[in-house]
Amino acid sequence: MRVLIVHAHPEPASFNAAMTRTAALELRAAGHEVQISDLYAMDFDPVSDRRNFRTVADATSYSQQTEERFASDHHGFTDELAAEHAKLAWSTALIFQFPLWWIGMPAIMKGWIDRVFAIGQTYGDGRWFDRGMMTGRRAMCSLTVGGTSDAYSERGAYGDLSSLLAPILHGTLAFVGFNVVEPFVVYAPGRLDPAERAAELARYARRVVGLETAPILSPTRSDHFDRGLIRKPFGLRVGPERAVTGSRRR
Amino acid sequence: MRVLIVHAHPEPASFNAAMTRTAALELRAAGHEVQISDLYAMDFDPVSDRRNFRTVADATSYSQQTEERFASDHHGFTDELAAEHAKLAWSTALIFQFPLWWIGMPAIMKGWIDRVFAIGQTYGDGRWFDRGMMTGRRAMCSLTVGGTSDAYSERGAYGDLSSLLAPILHGTLAFVGFNVVEPFVVYAPGRLDPAERAAELARYARRVVGLETAPILSPTRSDHFDRGLIRKPFGLRVGPERAVTGSRRR
Repeated sequence: MRVLIVHAHPEPASFNAAMTRTAALELRAAGHEVQISDLYAMDFDPVSDRRNFRTVADATSYSQQTEERFASDHHGFTDELAAEHAKLAWSTALIFQFPLWWIGMPAIMKGWIDRVFAIGQTYGDGRWFDRGMMTGRRAMCSLTVGGTSDAYSERGAYGDLSSLLAPILHGTLAFVGFNVVEPFVVYAPGRLDPAERAAELARYARRVVGLETAPILSPTRSDHFDRGLIRKPFGLRVGPERAVTGSRRR
Repeated sequence: MRVLIVHAHPEPASFNAAMTRTAALELRAAGHEVQISDLYAMDFDPVSDRRNFRTVADATSYSQQTEERFASDHHGFTDELAAEHAKLAWSTALIFQFPLWWIGMPAIMKGWIDRVFAIGQTYGDGRWFDRGMMTGRRAMCSLTVGGTSDAYSERGAYGDLSSLLAPILHGTLAFVGFNVVEPFVVYAPGRLDPAERAAELARYARRVVGLETAPILSPTRSDHFDRGLIRKPFGLRVGPERAVTGSRRR
């Protein structure tokens, strides 16, 4: 695997940082290649606007999609973003490592997506879901959560975590074509004692080394939807085929 | 009403900008007061770390919650954030105006929440949901969405929009105590002709002027949850009370 880890935590001694160090160490020991975009260390600017581009498609009014499409056609992204596009193109797997802030990514990471996942780089012109430009790759969110797993369950005050992550897992990662691996979550790392921390890091090491075979979320197929992204009628057919029993292969 | 509009769009000629201008004009004409935090115009920095604070609670390791609590106790936020806290304290209603990017807020707005909604300013020490520090106020998201309403329905490829917005509406705004008004959504504004744009702005004008009486999402009551934020058992009682018919008031 060639793994790109996008890492967002301001404290190098944090549990998130330990997780990324563990991932890099274990992946390299297993013969995989790793690059890390450590967003705080890079002083990454998450604000998306004309600063993304060297080119200008329309100087009178700023449309992000227009500028992204034009820049993709004319090598018009700034060096900072082109470097991230190159890492994405190089990678076969992408890991987002972050603490959950307000039930989402820290802004520095949300802005990495806003700016890097541009039209013509990850999706566009009908290339989405299983036709997205990131098909064939895997993506995983690895996150720490301040609360308990109970608080993020159906019975909890926040609700089920995987549903809350749908904008990232489905609307973003699956949308651009990734096979989305089940998120790896460490709850309340601040309350763990050293032995428990070590156990969680060991559990994470197993996950990242097994990333190629880890369970993925059920994929969304673009042929289930029309051009307007509305689910097509299921089209139940009443006819001879439905009477066939035994093998269901076609 | 004293209304704080937090606005995030890089283009002053955008439909989002027209919505915020309309809101400010109509609210003031109706006798309300308005302040606007125009995040792109302010060049707001959305990255949250030690830059938030003039104080230092722990110089050896950065814990955002520790620093926020300390800063709240010692007037330790930078002038930039203290100004936003003062606007929040002044306001009786909060509007977030933004284009939906990757099924979420643009990073510049997510970072406004990351940095401004600090412990001791909006929540903390058991003050959440109906005990949050923003109780008695209303909040509303007003957003534009590139796709159609069908694509953001139960049948659509992205799923139901109000569920997708749960991290913001419930996990953030309701969590800090706001009464959360039903979101105002304009779908595919780029495809509207001038008459349709004017009609949408008029619809928005009616909503903002009626913000005090607009429908709110059903509130989450903290007494439904224990300290671990797990829903308490419903506690069905079998006894004489259950046999009573007629009035259900206790």
